[in-house]
Amino acid sequence: MTDLADQSMSVLAADANGLDTAEIKKLQADLVDWDVVNENGMDILEKMFKFDTYLACLDFARSVGRMAEEFDHHPRLVVEWGRVSVAWWTHAVSGLHTNDFIMAARTDRLG
Amino acid sequence: MTDLADQSMSVLAADANGLDTAEIKKLQADLVDWDVVNENGMDILEKMFKFDTYLACLDFARSVGRMAEEFDHHPRLVVEWGRVSVAWWTHAVSGLHTNDFIMAARTDRLG
Repeated sequence: MTDLADQSMSVLAADANGLDTAEIKKLQADLVDWDVVNENGMDILEKMFKFDTYLACLDFARSVGRMAEEFDHHPRLVVEWGRVSVAWWTHAVSGLHTNDFIMAARTDRLG
Repeated sequence: MTDLADQSMSVLAADANGLDTAEIKKLQADLVDWDVVNENGMDILEKMFKFDTYLACLDFARSVGRMAEEFDHHPRLVVEWGRVSVAWWTHAVSGLHTNDFIMAARTDRLG
């Protein structure tokens, strides 16, 4: 099987649906330390990355942000002293899409 | 009176206390659109900055982060599509210190 990070992202159909619980669990098993969190009734995929310096946090956030811009799929980045939280979800499906798991796997390659 | 952004930050004494409500209101009046929000029992100073592009969000977050590093006082930065939330507080006083208001005023100069 192709590594999740190397899979191609899908263009979303207008009637695209979010993943169901079984699909989420299957994809989540291919990731390390990414949590599925329900936030205001919507599933999001979240992971905390820790760093020794604040500048390392800023650099990581910038790398993830630039990758996000390249693929036109944008996470929430929370930068604090020593850590950066990255959260992926798909606005158009109000939840999680395979694209989010691909971007999570790609995020791990930057961390 | 010296503009808040131009005031010098204080080195915190070991027994430093946070500002009380009256002091907070007085300093808040010198800022534009900064909210005092109670988060887990602690007051923080928060403002949302909006931008037209994601790259502009990243650039602003980086500018604030670099300023934070310069003054060794670090905010929480939440970067999302089109907006960046900046939150200042002082860990050592579990709340707000004059330094946070100075950093908020300096943040406005970058926005």
